[in-house]
Formats: sequence, structure tokens, C-alpha cells
Amino acid sequence: MEVFRTAESMRNWSRAQRAAGKRIGFVPTMGALHEGHLSLMRVAVQDNEVAVASIFVNPTQFAPHEDFDAYPRQFERDAAMCEAAGIVAIYAPMASGMYPENFSTYVLVEKVSEGLCGGSRPHFFRGVATVVTKLFNAVTPDRAYFGQKDAQQCAVITRMARDLDMGVEIVEMPIVREPDGLAMSSRNAYLSEEERVRALCISRALFAAQARMEAGERDAACVKAEVLQAMDEVTVDYVELVDADTMRSVETIEKPVLLAVAAVSGGTRLIDNIKYTPSESLVRVER
Amino acid sequence: MEVFRTAESMRNWSRAQRAAGKRIGFVPTMGALHEGHLSLMRVAVQDNEVAVASIFVNPTQFAPHEDFDAYPRQFERDAAMCEAAGIVAIYAPMASGMYPENFSTYVLVEKVSEGLCGGSRPHFFRGVATVVTKLFNAVTPDRAYFGQKDAQQCAVITRMARDLDMGVEIVEMPIVREPDGLAMSSRNAYLSEEERVRALCISRALFAAQARMEAGERDAACVKAEVLQAMDEVTVDYVELVDADTMRSVETIEKPVLLAVAAVSGGTRLIDNIKYTPSESLVRVER
Repeated sequence: MEVFRTAESMRNWSRAQRAAGKRIGFVPTMGALHEGHLSLMRVAVQDNEVAVASIFVNPTQFAPHEDFDAYPRQFERDAAMCEAAGIVAIYAPMASGMYPENFSTYVLVEKVSEGLCGGSRPHFFRGVATVVTKLFNAVTPDRAYFGQKDAQQCAVITRMARDLDMGVEIVEMPIVREPDGLAMSSRNAYLSEEERVRALCISRALFAAQARMEAGERDAACVKAEVLQAMDEVTVDYVELVDADTMRSVETIEKPVLLAVAAVSGGTRLIDNIKYTPSESLVRVER
Repeated sequence: MEVFRTAESMRNWSRAQRAAGKRIGFVPTMGALHEGHLSLMRVAVQDNEVAVASIFVNPTQFAPHEDFDAYPRQFERDAAMCEAAGIVAIYAPMASGMYPENFSTYVLVEKVSEGLCGGSRPHFFRGVATVVTKLFNAVTPDRAYFGQKDAQQCAVITRMARDLDMGVEIVEMPIVREPDGLAMSSRNAYLSEEERVRALCISRALFAAQARMEAGERDAACVKAEVLQAMDEVTVDYVELVDADTMRSVETIEKPVLLAVAAVSGGTRLIDNIKYTPSESLVRVER
């Protein structure tokens, strides 16, 4: 497995792979890898001739008061996990190389980035879209894999890749959960045992809402109210029910929707979501 | 010569060229080609195994009151000129394909885009940076060629390509002028004979300023005042003397500078500029 520290060395490697007719799968990460990341890597390895992962804790997607400094960094362990998953190259650029003095270019994705986490973290998606553009330009992947846990991020990246003609297929993979239901996240490491137990009300609330929608509930306000009520052991940031493509709020559940929540347990901000597609027959009954 | 109408067909061709080990030179244009464009194409043809030109009048860099509809369009003539210059592929996407419904991603280059034309045309460089990103993603060039006539545009694109790790070398080529000094521009076609004669005060003013700086003038305010005075037959939009890299105003001429002007003759907005690098010996005398 090779490790590249500059965009140029990464790109040279990628160009050689392409010249040899190999398609490149890519999994961008901030390290602190867990089973969720590994599930992406396994598919990237399986579906492409070569698979690359990046490990970069991106400063521009953290606000000054957020956990950039505390974010777990464990490169050797992460690299070993990548290698075991079949990754053949890691792109681990240095922050000084990514954001030199006078850096002044940003990629902005409007609309789809505006609600949900975009409301709570105003510069977050600008930072994400910009760094993913830079990573794509260095790695030049054919396919890039993202987890549904960050569903709005997936929507933003999908929109961006299409709008800017990046020629990268964005693949969204399902959320991987702990046996007790907690969505896997590098930030779960911040939780005390007690905070973690309290955090379980998040996934419980989502699963209950899913059952309600499957039973025919089509009123978004009803679903959101129940989720809010069930998330009684954490501090809720938002509970939203939105169109799964545009991220715009819906009142009636009649197309694929995303039920997305953010909440704080202890000092740790957690996000989770489920997607739901109403079955045709139920929609007809409702009408 | 081939003509591609979609990003996908363009990219497939480019990938095949790269796989065959060929480097790609690229000249983005809005058509209405003149000798300035052709000078870029000849260098692109000479310095790369294959050379591509794009022809696309980009709606997002025009404000509603500007000349998007009137901008000259003459595809057959332009294509013949490209072919004669040695261009092997033209990328001429359709506006509907470039900006489909729900398009919402923009590339913003801060600082360097803010003065000069960025002041007079607030959305101009956002439109330019976004479309050039899209063109680069479809054509995947090794080198891209731009004219110094649009000096701030060159600075913006250079900054953007570096910041976003695009892996494209940006090459700036000198301004090509008519025998009487007028900088070549597709918009010169709008000028009546009388407006054109009046427009000649622009290049005359710049050449006089160049002579003043070569003779040792180092005070930016002095140079600008003289240029302004000499541009007495047009309506001046701005006269600025800026650092040639950062586009920030300077008071003293001690590094490479750009003397840039914009003015209206009749209804036509024209821009022109010169670059000047003070010789070491003169700078020392000044100190």
C-alpha cells in the first residue's frame, strides 16, 4: 500500500492507473475509522480495479468552537485497517499543503446545503464541498463512496459532482449501526457510558417513526412531533422530514423522504437519519 | 476535427487521448474568434500532443442588463478557424446541458476577484470560475491558455487551479492588438467607426503610462491620474494600478504591477491593460 502526501504525487499515481485502464474507487475519510468506513472500502475494492482512501481532518469544515483539535487522529491504526480492507493507496495530504497562505477558492452548493446541518453549521458544507473537490482532483476517481449517515452531505456532493461535470459517480451506502442501534460515528468515542445510553433514544425514535410511516402515516408534522417527543434523553438540534433529493421540507410523505435528526448527548453532537419511500399502493389509499 | 456537445462525450475523448499518452492543450473561448484567440491556439497546438478549444457563450457571467443575447455567435466560421489553427476537437456544449434545472453549485475565488472588473460586474468572476471548472472537468487539459487582455480573469483562474488542485498549468499569453493599438476583442465588432477612433485613447494612455514608468515614475497615483486624463474620449469605468499577482492596489511601483482600465465607448464596454516590472536598478535609485 502506498501513502501520498501531496496532490501532485497522488495525481501522478492515479494517472498511471488510468493509463493502465484501471478504474479507481475512492473513499474519502477523516480517519478514526470504524465499521461504517470499512463497509464503504469493501465495496470500493470489489467494484473497481483499484481503491483509494483519503485520511484528512479538514479544518475548513469545523467552526472555531467545534472539535477540530479534539477530533481523533490515529494514522497508523487507520492505515492498517485500510490495507486489511484491500485499499492500495492512501492520500493523506498535509493541511499546510491543502490550505497554503492566500488560499481563497471555495465551492458553494446552494439550496440542498441550506437546511438541516447547513442551518446549524453555516460554513460546514462549503468546507466539505471544497475539500471533496480538491480530493477528487487529486485522486480522479471513477466512483466515490459516502455513508448515508451523512445524508445531506451525500446530497450536496451528488449535486456538486453533477453540476460541475466531475465525471465521478457518487455511491451512497447504508448506515452501519452498533448492535444496540447507535449509528456508527468517529464522534461516538467522545461519549461516556451514560451519555451513550442516553443517545440510544435517537435511533429508537427513528425506528418508531419508520414503523409509523410503514403503517401508513403520511403527515410529516405528526411524524416529527413523535420523534421529538421520543428523543427525550438528549438535547435536540433539529428533527426534519425532507425530500430525499432536494433536502426541502415536506408536509406530506408522498415521495422518497429523509427523516434526519441532530442532537447533543453530553457535549457531543450526533446525527442520524432514515430514508423512507412510500409504497405506491399506500399512497393511493391516502389520496 | 471532432465536435462534442456533452461533457460526457468530451471526457471520453479526452480520456482516450490521455490513455494514449498524449498531453492536452486547451483554449476556452466564447467564440467570435479573432487573432488573439488564434495566437493562443497556435501555442496550444505547438506545445501539446493534441489541442482542444471550447466555444460556449456562458450565460452565468453576464448580468441581466449585459450583452448575452447580442454577443456575436458564428459557429461555422469559428470552427473553420479552429481547424485551420490545428485544433483537433471542439467542445461546444449546450446551455441546457451546462445549466440544467436545479443547477446550484458555484466556484468562488475571493480576494483576487474583488477589485477591477469584479467591482463593476459583481457576478462575473463567479460565472467565469464556475464555467472554467466545468470546462476543465470535461476536457481534463494539461495546460490551458488565456489572454492577458483579461488579466484579472487569468489571475482568478490561476488562483483557482492552484487552490483546488486542478493539475492544470495556466498559461497567460500577451495581448494581441490591431495595428492602431486597439486591444483585440470580440466586442470591438459593436463599435461604430467613430466610437472605435475614440476608443484608441485607451491604448494610447496605457502606452504613455508605460513610458513614464520606464522613465522611473514610481508613484501609482501619478500614473493613474495621467491615464485618466488621457482617456478623454471615452467614459471611464476604472483606472487601477495593482499587484500583478494579488490584484491589490499599490501606492508605489516596486514589484510587477498591472495597470488595468475599463471604459465605455458608445454603448460598448472595453478593457485593456499593461503589465510592468520595475527594473532592479531603478528601484534601488528610488530608495
